[in-house]
Amino acid sequence: MMRGLMQEWPLVVTSVIDHAAQWHGEREMVTRTVEGPIHRTNYAELHLRARKFAQALQRLGVGKGEVVGTMAWNGFRHFEAWYAIMGIGAVCHTLNPRLFAEQLVYIINHAEDRVVLLDTTFVPILEAISDQLPNVKAYVLLTDRENMPETKLPNSLCYEDLVEAEDGNFSWVAVDERDACGLCYTSGTTGNPKGVVYSHRSNVIHGLAAAGADAIGARSTDNILPVVPMFHANAWALVFAAPMAGAKMVMPGAKLDGESIYELLDSEKVSITAAVPTVWLMLLQYLEKSGAKLPHLNRVVIGGSAVPRVMLETFERDYDVEVVHAWGMTELSPVGTLASFKSGMEDLSFDQQMDVKVKQGRPIYTVEMKITDDDGNELLHDGEAFGHLMVRGPAIASAYLKGEGGKVLDDDGWFDTGDVATLDPLGFMQITDRAKDVIKSGGEWISSIEIENLAVGHPKVAEAAVIGVAHPKWDERPLLIVLPAEGEKPTKEEILEFMEDKIAKWWMPDDVTFVDEIPHTATGKIQKLALRKQFEGYELPTAK
Amino acid sequence: MMRGLMQEWPLVVTSVIDHAAQWHGEREMVTRTVEGPIHRTNYAELHLRARKFAQALQRLGVGKGEVVGTMAWNGFRHFEAWYAIMGIGAVCHTLNPRLFAEQLVYIINHAEDRVVLLDTTFVPILEAISDQLPNVKAYVLLTDRENMPETKLPNSLCYEDLVEAEDGNFSWVAVDERDACGLCYTSGTTGNPKGVVYSHRSNVIHGLAAAGADAIGARSTDNILPVVPMFHANAWALVFAAPMAGAKMVMPGAKLDGESIYELLDSEKVSITAAVPTVWLMLLQYLEKSGAKLPHLNRVVIGGSAVPRVMLETFERDYDVEVVHAWGMTELSPVGTLASFKSGMEDLSFDQQMDVKVKQGRPIYTVEMKITDDDGNELLHDGEAFGHLMVRGPAIASAYLKGEGGKVLDDDGWFDTGDVATLDPLGFMQITDRAKDVIKSGGEWISSIEIENLAVGHPKVAEAAVIGVAHPKWDERPLLIVLPAEGEKPTKEEILEFMEDKIAKWWMPDDVTFVDEIPHTATGKIQKLALRKQFEGYELPTAK
Repeated sequence: MMRGLMQEWPLVVTSVIDHAAQWHGEREMVTRTVEGPIHRTNYAELHLRARKFAQALQRLGVGKGEVVGTMAWNGFRHFEAWYAIMGIGAVCHTLNPRLFAEQLVYIINHAEDRVVLLDTTFVPILEAISDQLPNVKAYVLLTDRENMPETKLPNSLCYEDLVEAEDGNFSWVAVDERDACGLCYTSGTTGNPKGVVYSHRSNVIHGLAAAGADAIGARSTDNILPVVPMFHANAWALVFAAPMAGAKMVMPGAKLDGESIYELLDSEKVSITAAVPTVWLMLLQYLEKSGAKLPHLNRVVIGGSAVPRVMLETFERDYDVEVVHAWGMTELSPVGTLASFKSGMEDLSFDQQMDVKVKQGRPIYTVEMKITDDDGNELLHDGEAFGHLMVRGPAIASAYLKGEGGKVLDDDGWFDTGDVATLDPLGFMQITDRAKDVIKSGGEWISSIEIENLAVGHPKVAEAAVIGVAHPKWDERPLLIVLPAEGEKPTKEEILEFMEDKIAKWWMPDDVTFVDEIPHTATGKIQKLALRKQFEGYELPTAK
Repeated sequence: MMRGLMQEWPLVVTSVIDHAAQWHGEREMVTRTVEGPIHRTNYAELHLRARKFAQALQRLGVGKGEVVGTMAWNGFRHFEAWYAIMGIGAVCHTLNPRLFAEQLVYIINHAEDRVVLLDTTFVPILEAISDQLPNVKAYVLLTDRENMPETKLPNSLCYEDLVEAEDGNFSWVAVDERDACGLCYTSGTTGNPKGVVYSHRSNVIHGLAAAGADAIGARSTDNILPVVPMFHANAWALVFAAPMAGAKMVMPGAKLDGESIYELLDSEKVSITAAVPTVWLMLLQYLEKSGAKLPHLNRVVIGGSAVPRVMLETFERDYDVEVVHAWGMTELSPVGTLASFKSGMEDLSFDQQMDVKVKQGRPIYTVEMKITDDDGNELLHDGEAFGHLMVRGPAIASAYLKGEGGKVLDDDGWFDTGDVATLDPLGFMQITDRAKDVIKSGGEWISSIEIENLAVGHPKVAEAAVIGVAHPKWDERPLLIVLPAEGEKPTKEEILEFMEDKIAKWWMPDDVTFVDEIPHTATGKIQKLALRKQFEGYELPTAK
């Protein structure tokens, strides 16, 4: 057996900030601070301050392999702290401030966070639960002495005081590339959140793959604004991909409204940005109102949920911005697919191009992907068949922290995303539904999401949800649950009539019912589980 | 200690061809065959045929860890064979046909090649030495039955016959990511060639890093023509980076003249290409003669030796093609640096931009770099100080095959490139000389290359070489050796006068001598060692 004769150079994330500081030390990071003013620094300074904070963390007694929580917006201190935590061999556990209090208590205790860092805006959230967090030894407020608030948090410390007390004369703690460096809980719709544990290796490989020209496509001349928060799975790799390329980073802090984001896009000449559709809805509304344009912006990566076609069209036609529709999951680090064009698509008509871009796209190298039926048989890439979306790769979860959720890979190592999807002949994937929300009618699958998307097109419908309801002949049939638009009183008949001929006859809901409220999760998704409980035993008119 | 919970997914090169076949199966590879006609295939077919040839190699008795030589132009069969060899866990040893016969004998025997694959054009080269290659069990000619030549090669086989006999029902042999997969000898100017052994891991990491937007920048919509041969260190990563991105590949076969390359650039709408300056000189001459333009070409990567400024200017100004000046070495897999712009450089004047691009550029992420003096002290990035260029990274050699050359890393793991270079404040590296060719005058270094470049600017000079000659006071002083231009008889005085005020006074050669011939290596470099022998004991007029 012959071995390669290449250097042992572990894939550790500190090499990313080392590279940025050494070769792009002058490149800026611009932050809208939670205190208000714009703050400017660069990779050389960030690198020095990260090393200082690493010293401070060690002085606080944080050891290798221990966990440090962060509840923070995208900003320079969060970025520094991130590399400092990983640089002492500890694990950076990003906390989503939008989780319910009991979920936060659960995950902070489950992960055994030793120290929690937080922006001052989140003091009330942690004050309300700190008495239930016995393991947290200290709370570090990501601000300076001047802006330190009064707080009842036990053992609260000022970040800038800690940084100023150190000299930065520090070498990163040596780690194995498979050691943990990041932790992010999934906000499952059922049961407790489950922890995804990133390794140095997975973050470096994922960062390299996601930085590719057909994905984020970061160049050192780019100015990149990650609106997507760092507490959403590595800010979709941007927290690694941008410094790898030496790109300028623009951090939006707490203000994600249309006007605030526009201001940064414009004043900092942002060329690449990324966020969920909700953010872009706010931006587009602001642009329409103000008449402002986006002359500097080349590319917007949109993921987190499916991009509405009208949003795609507006960006591309009205603002000449390339939309890259993306799909991922916390368990994928998170990037899975991106809808970058393949050869020949540049020559399609605008409508045909939008047909491509409305799909979630094709997998990046390092992500293996297939769709399967309930028996595990691989389905065709014909754009019609839809099945369980299965993935495999070096930056994809193999298990959850402490074994929660049990075995998550099948015998061949595939991870079931819980989504169902189609794959077309050119390899473009489109999410059809969540597997547990699919309606199984007579052995065939019906997508609840497609029916919902159709129903909300009716002007009298504010929101729609579709669930499967037991049926004596077909096992399950779709029930359409409608929240009427303000002041409207639609009828079952007019809604069904509106839908007719727009979907297959056997996909048509067997009944329509009207409600005053549709329940949502903390992250804004429809709680299908709650609806299924609410309508348990519902008798369909077709079931008699 | 907390470990990451990410999948074990080894970084093996077969995942690259798997990805290309699965997600870009329809993308083409176009080859100008050595037989003449243009051949078209795609990644799906290449993948199938690679698996068939893998079966054939196993049938020939090639085992895991054994070595298979290839002496071939860039073409579809070479590409398939490359992945087939690596896919059975064997090692692909690329042979440079331009090496002298005795060097080929040495490296084929030293590497213990079991089978050698060759294009029919190289039959005479191997026929001449096959009796000195006792370990080679078979020669596979990369052609079909129809084009098989008469040959005296023992046990010669036809590639297409071997492929046709197999069914392709084959799974890649499982390997460890640190196992060897590639082997390429450096054509050292002294001593025997030394073997650089690439691992699966190093090739995957290097391919990802070199594919980045600021480096090769390959997108699936690109059509990429690697003129740089696959026997030059992975065709500068293109053999991995192009299929990772799903880019079309255009393979030039044996014809590298200006007209043939132009034909492919034009007919295949090539957007990215890469080669050494000599190739581009031929292309530019052809373009000038024919008046042809390059409307499809976006980017040309030039490396292997320094890019002459006039070549840079011609591509950028006359043909609107972005030149990316690159530097690398076989030992670096090979990409080290690329002169992609940093922020603000787009706004420089044309001349200032060329000042940037004439440098070899800044390191890609995964390449650490520094310059040091003779005592190992790191030198400033001021664009003036020049020192030993040292590198470190996961795709950089740690040793040579069978320990030849001894220990090649210093105690901190740095590899000495043998080059001396400057680094400017923005991190752009410029090669100044080879360390062994630097003239050490009174403890200060003088670059032989800078003096040579200046001297060849004189119209009566065809070629120039500078070596250090012993001097009683200064240890060494420069001697300028000139090959006069055809029919010219320059004098020492007129050449020195021409150079005056263009370099520091103390860099001026102490003497000029004229010769009828300057000796070169097989790869076209000036043999300084031979010159130093030739002029041993030379008495400088200043030494009296």
